Amino acid sequence: MSAVSRRARLGVVGLGRMGAVHAANLAHACPSAELAVCYDADAATAAALGARHGIAVAGSVEELLGAHELDGVVIATPTGTHAPLALQAADARLAVFVEKPISLERAATLQVVERFEAVGLALQVGFNRRFDDTVADVARRVRAGELGAPYLLRISQRDMSPPRPEFLAGSGGIFLDMGIHDFDLARFLVGDVVRVAAVGTAVSDPAFAEIGDFDTALATLEFANGALGVVDLSRVAGYGYESSAELVGEKATVRLEMPPALLAEWRRAGEATRPLLPTYDRRYGPAFAAELDAFARAILDSVPPPVTGRDALAAFDIAAAATSACALGHPVAVGAPT
Amino acid sequence: MSAVSRRARLGVVGLGRMGAVHAANLAHACPSAELAVCYDADAATAAALGARHGIAVAGSVEELLGAHELDGVVIATPTGTHAPLALQAADARLAVFVEKPISLERAATLQVVERFEAVGLALQVGFNRRFDDTVADVARRVRAGELGAPYLLRISQRDMSPPRPEFLAGSGGIFLDMGIHDFDLARFLVGDVVRVAAVGTAVSDPAFAEIGDFDTALATLEFANGALGVVDLSRVAGYGYESSAELVGEKATVRLEMPPALLAEWRRAGEATRPLLPTYDRRYGPAFAAELDAFARAILDSVPPPVTGRDALAAFDIAAAATSACALGHPVAVGAPT
Amino acid sequence: MSAVSRRARLGVVGLGRMGAVHAANLAHACPSAELAVCYDADAATAAALGARHGIAVAGSVEELLGAHELDGVVIATPTGTHAPLALQAADARLAVFVEKPISLERAATLQVVERFEAVGLALQVGFNRRFDDTVADVARRVRAGELGAPYLLRISQRDMSPPRPEFLAGSGGIFLDMGIHDFDLARFLVGDVVRVAAVGTAVSDPAFAEIGDFDTALATLEFANGALGVVDLSRVAGYGYESSAELVGEKATVRLEMPPALLAEWRRAGEATRPLLPTYDRRYGPAFAAELDAFARAILDSVPPPVTGRDALAAFDIAAAATSACALGHPVAVGAPT
Amino acid sequence: MSAVSRRARLGVVGLGRMGAVHAANLAHACPSAELAVCYDADAATAAALGARHGIAVAGSVEELLGAHELDGVVIATPTGTHAPLALQAADARLAVFVEKPISLERAATLQVVERFEAVGLALQVGFNRRFDDTVADVARRVRAGELGAPYLLRISQRDMSPPRPEFLAGSGGIFLDMGIHDFDLARFLVGDVVRVAAVGTAVSDPAFAEIGDFDTALATLEFANGALGVVDLSRVAGYGYESSAELVGEKATVRLEMPPALLAEWRRAGEATRPLLPTYDRRYGPAFAAELDAFARAILDSVPPPVTGRDALAAFDIAAAATSACALGHPVAVGAPT
Repeated sequence: MSAVSRRARLGVVGLGRMGAVHAANLAHACPSAELAVCYDADAATAAALGARHGIAVAGSVEELLGAHELDGVVIATPTGTHAPLALQAADARLAVFVEKPISLERAATLQVVERFEAVGLALQVGFNRRFDDTVADVARRVRAGELGAPYLLRISQRDMSPPRPEFLAGSGGIFLDMGIHDFDLARFLVGDVVRVAAVGTAVSDPAFAEIGDFDTALATLEFANGALGVVDLSRVAGYGYESSAELVGEKATVRLEMPPALLAEWRRAGEATRPLLPTYDRRYGPAFAAELDAFARAILDSVPPPVTGRDALAAFDIAAAATSACALGHPVAVGAPT
Repeated sequence: MSAVSRRARLGVVGLGRMGAVHAANLAHACPSAELAVCYDADAATAAALGARHGIAVAGSVEELLGAHELDGVVIATPTGTHAPLALQAADARLAVFVEKPISLERAATLQVVERFEAVGLALQVGFNRRFDDTVADVARRVRAGELGAPYLLRISQRDMSPPRPEFLAGSGGIFLDMGIHDFDLARFLVGDVVRVAAVGTAVSDPAFAEIGDFDTALATLEFANGALGVVDLSRVAGYGYESSAELVGEKATVRLEMPPALLAEWRRAGEATRPLLPTYDRRYGPAFAAELDAFARAILDSVPPPVTGRDALAAFDIAAAATSACALGHPVAVGAPT
Repeated sequence: MSAVSRRARLGVVGLGRMGAVHAANLAHACPSAELAVCYDADAATAAALGARHGIAVAGSVEELLGAHELDGVVIATPTGTHAPLALQAADARLAVFVEKPISLERAATLQVVERFEAVGLALQVGFNRRFDDTVADVARRVRAGELGAPYLLRISQRDMSPPRPEFLAGSGGIFLDMGIHDFDLARFLVGDVVRVAAVGTAVSDPAFAEIGDFDTALATLEFANGALGVVDLSRVAGYGYESSAELVGEKATVRLEMPPALLAEWRRAGEATRPLLPTYDRRYGPAFAAELDAFARAILDSVPPPVTGRDALAAFDIAAAATSACALGHPVAVGAPT
Repeated sequence: MSAVSRRARLGVVGLGRMGAVHAANLAHACPSAELAVCYDADAATAAALGARHGIAVAGSVEELLGAHELDGVVIATPTGTHAPLALQAADARLAVFVEKPISLERAATLQVVERFEAVGLALQVGFNRRFDDTVADVARRVRAGELGAPYLLRISQRDMSPPRPEFLAGSGGIFLDMGIHDFDLARFLVGDVVRVAAVGTAVSDPAFAEIGDFDTALATLEFANGALGVVDLSRVAGYGYESSAELVGEKATVRLEMPPALLAEWRRAGEATRPLLPTYDRRYGPAFAAELDAFARAILDSVPPPVTGRDALAAFDIAAAATSACALGHPVAVGAPT
C-alpha cells in the first residue's frame, strides 16, 4: 500500500446504486486501484459524484474510454448496455469489470467473452461473493480436501421485497437475475453442472405470472462429479435478506450463514429477539471492494482476473437451463441449445 | 392421570428396536395406555421384554389378538408383514397403530386403509413427528394464520450412516423409507401436494446404484395452494442426524432446527465446538411416547386418531410419485397410476 | 433393567411440588428404584398420589419409616423439618435422600451429616445439577484435564418471578436458598472455595429489603487453587429461567448454556424470535430422575452416594459466608464461625 | 459527504498501532475529517505513514501543533505523554482526541479535564465502544425505556494473551488498563457507580504477581440507582478475544455478544466448529472510525464531544477504586481519596 506503488487507473460508467458503490470503493477501499473518472447519462449525477471524490467527469463514454489514460473501466449501467459498452472498451484496449449478467442473450455474452479472449484483455464479471471472506475461506478449504467428495449443496437466496415492476419485466427472470449468483457459487464450491430442473410459482402476486416470471422458485442441479444441488429463490421473503448455503460432503459438512444485523439479543417474557439484515449490502459490502481490488491487481500483474468471462458464461448457461427447464417442465442439459 | 381413569389395553407385536421403544413407552410414559402383552417371532426376545415390564407374553399373534381383552395393537414388525397383521387385527376388531409404511405397495396400503374405514376401527400410522412439541406448536401457529400464505418449504433429513445392505434392499428406496416422514410433514404444515419431481445419486458408494437406490436425493414438491417445497435426503451425512425444516410464508418464516446434543460449548484457540446429535431417537424420543398416548386416547374417546390411514396413503403417494419421477426423469402427478 | 434385578425400596415423605416429582420419577424413571410408599401431612394429597402410582399410603412418618421394609426414604418436606426427619430415618436405619438445604442452621446440618457418617448410612442431598447430562460431561472432561488449570468461573441463576412472600421470609435468603446450587456447582467444577465476598440489592421491590433479603445479588469466590468465581442471582429476571455458566481455563473455556424452549425460530420483518424456558423443571427434569436412581444404586451397591452430606455442608458454608459477607460489607473466609 | 462541506483538519501524534489505525481512518473513513499531518518520535515511521496517505510530516510536536492550521489533534502516544501533550495542544488552542487513559494519575487527569473546560476546547477520550453500532443501539433503547429499571449488569473482557512484560509493568494494572473500557460502558448503559469491590489473581504466571498485577480479576459495582454490576477481566483467555455483556432489567434483558469470526460452521462426526475472533480490532474496527468522525463533527459544530473529559475522569475513578479495593480487601467508594 506504499505511495510509490502503481495503482490501476479506472473509470466508472453508470452511477446508479451499484456504480456509486463501486466508485466509492475505488476511491477509498481498493489499495490497488485509483478512481480517475466517471460518467453517467445523467450529467448531474455524474457531476455530484465527481465532486464528492474529487475526480474528473467525462462528457461521454467515448471521452471516458479515450482521454484519461485508463487501465480499465467498470461498467455498471443497465444490463442491456453491458455488452456494447464492453465491446467499445475492448476497442479502446481497456480491461473491463462488468456487472452481472453480461447480457440476457447467450450470443451477446459469448461475443463479449470471445472478444476479450482474442485481444487478451482482462474481463471480470461481478460475482462478488467469491471475494467474501467466508466464501473464499470455505472454497479454499474445500479445495484443500477438508470436505472430501461433495455430496449435496443447498443454497437459499431471498429478498425482502421485489424490485420495481419495470425492472422485473426486463430482468431476464428470477433464475438469470437472482439465481446467477448462486449458480456461480455452486460452480465455485462444487464444480460443473450438467443438468438442471426447475419449478417456479407466483404465489404472492399474479403480477409475476403476467410477465412470465416467478416470485419463488427452485432449481435442482446435477453436477458432473455426481453431487446434487438445490437453489431456492424468493423475491418476497418479508423477514429479511437471505444468502445462505450448506455443502454436505464425504468428510465434513459446511454451513454458510447470515451474520446478525446487530450483536444484541433482547429477551422479554418467554422470548428472545435478534435483528435480521434487510439487504445484501450489509452482507456482501466488503466483497464489493475486494472484487474491484482483485480486478485492479489482475491488471497490474497482467494475469487473468479471478473470475473470468468463461465463468460468467457458465453461470449464464445454468441460469438459462433453469429458465428453460421451468418452462418445459422437464430437466434440461446445461449448454444445450435453447 | 388418576388411577381410576380407564386406560386403553394394548399389545405390541414385533419387538425389534422400534417395538421395544413402543413397549417401554406404553409401560411408563403413556398415561392413557396400558401395556398388556407382547409378542415377537423370537421367543427369547419376547420373554425378556415381558419380564422387564412384568407383562404377559403371547405365544402367537393369534393369541395376542384374541386372548387378552385388548383395545388395540401396536405393529412394529418388518414392513412386509404390516398389512397382513393389520388386516388380522381388524378381523379381531382391534384398533391398530402401525409403523410406517403400511406397505411398499399402494394396493395393499389402500386395502388396509379401506378395511379400517369399513369396520370403523382406529388406524394410526407412525408419523411421530406430528407429536413433537416443536412441530405441533409450529403447525398450530401456521393454522392460526401467523405465517399467512405458505410460499416455500425446505426440509432436510439426513442420517450419519446407511442401514445394513439387507435392509436397504427391501426398504422401498430412499423416498419411501426416509422421505415419507418429510412428505407427511409437508402435508401437515402446508397441505396437499399435486406434483413431484425428483433426482437421486449414488455418490458415496456404487452399492446404492446396484440396488436401484440412492444415498442422496432431492424431491421438489408443488402444493395445491401454489407453494413450492424441496426435501433433501442423505443416508451418508457423516456429521450427525439431521431433521430440520424452514417454511417461508407471507407474514413470517419459521425454522425448525436440531437441538444441541449437550448444552456445552468448548472453546479453544480460535474455535468453538459443540456436539451434534448422532441419531433420531434423541431428537424425537418424546414424540414416540406422545403418538402412542394419542392413539390410546383416540380409542378411549372413540374418535378418529390424529393421523389416519388416509394420511398414510397420501404420504405414500408422494413418495411413490418421487420414486417414479426420479426413474422417469420428469415430474409426476401425485396419485397418478404408476 | 432386567426384572430379576433387585431395586431399592423407597418411600417419599412430603408430597409438594418436588415430592410429587420425586415420586413420579421413582415410579417410572428410575430403573434401580421402586416406589413403595408415600406420606404427606395432608392425607388427601397422599391418597391421591398413592392411587396414581398404585402404592401404599402411610398414615404417619413413623409407619412409613418402620413398616414397609424400605431401603431408604426421600425427604421433600419444608426445610425446617429436613433435619429432624433425617435423624428419625437414621434411627430407623434408612438411607436418606433429602432436598437442599438440610437445614438453615449449620449446627443442625453438621449434626445430620455426622449422624449418617457414624451409622454408616447413605445421606444424599438434592444437588440435582451434578446429574444433568451436560454438567456431568463437563465435569468429567474438566477432571480429565481438557481445560487445564481453571482460571475464572462465572455462573448465572435467575428466576422469572420470586416465590411467595411467606416462603421467602423463611427461605434463609437468596444465597442459601438459590445460590447453594451454584456454590455446589462451583465446588464440583473447580474445587474448594476459601473466601467469599457478596453484595445484594432490593431493586425491584422494597419488600425484599424489609425481610433482610435481596432480589439481585452477586457473590465472588476465591478458590483454593487460585481461580476466581462469580455467581449472579436474580429472583426477578422476567425474561425466563436462567442457569448458565462459563469456566475459563488454561487450555480451553467451556460454556454451559440454556436449551431452547422449542426448536423453532420465527422470523418477521427484520427480526427473529425464539422461545425461552420459563422454569427450572424443563432444564433439569431428567437430572431429578438421575439423582434418585444414583441414590438407589448407591444403596444397592453399598457405596457412598455421589453427593454426600459433606458436600451439602461445604455448599452451606459458602452460602453462609456469602450471607455474612454481604451483611458485613467485606469478604469472609469460608467455614469461619459466623 | 459533499466535497464543498468543510472537514475538520486533524493531525496525529504517535504512530504506533493505534495511531496508524487512527491515521488510516482519518484518511479514508471519516467524512467529517481531513488528515493533514502526522508526527512520530521515530522519523522513519512518520515518513512512511505520511507518504502512504500523501500528507505532511511534522518535524516536531511543536511544528505539528503550530504550523498546519489544524482544528484538532489525535494523541496516540504512550500513556505517560498523554497529559503533557494534551496540555500543549490546549495551549495551541487545538481540540484533542486522546487515547485512554489520559493519565495513570488522577491529579494529572483532572488537570487536563479542567484545562479544556476552562478554555472551552473539545476533549474526547478513546472510549470507542460507545460508537459501536450494537452498543449505541442498545444504549439508545435502554434510554428510551425498553429495559425499564436496570437490575444487573455483567461484562466480560478477555484477551488471548497478555501484552509484553515491559508494557504491563507501566500499564497501571488490569483495572485501569483493561477495565476502564468496561467501567465506561457500565456508566454508559446503567449510570453512576458509587462503590466497588474487587479481587484479582495471578493464576497463570507468577510474573503478574511480581509486578503487583493480576491476569484474572473481578470487579463488582454498586450503581447509584440500586443496580449491581460485575466485570470479569482476563489477560490469558487463550480461546480468543471476548467483549460481551448482559444487562438484566425490569422489562427486558439484553445481551451484547461477540460476532463470529467467519460465517461458516464446519461439521464433522458428532461436532460442529466455528471460528472465534482473536483480537479486538475485528470486533471494534468500525467504532474506531466512528469515534474520530464524531470528534470531527463536534469540532465543526462547536458542540461538546459525545465522550468528554468528565467521562474519562469518572471511568478512571471506578478503575482506581477497583485497584484500591483489590489491594485493601474491602469495598471502596468511588471518588474517595486513595
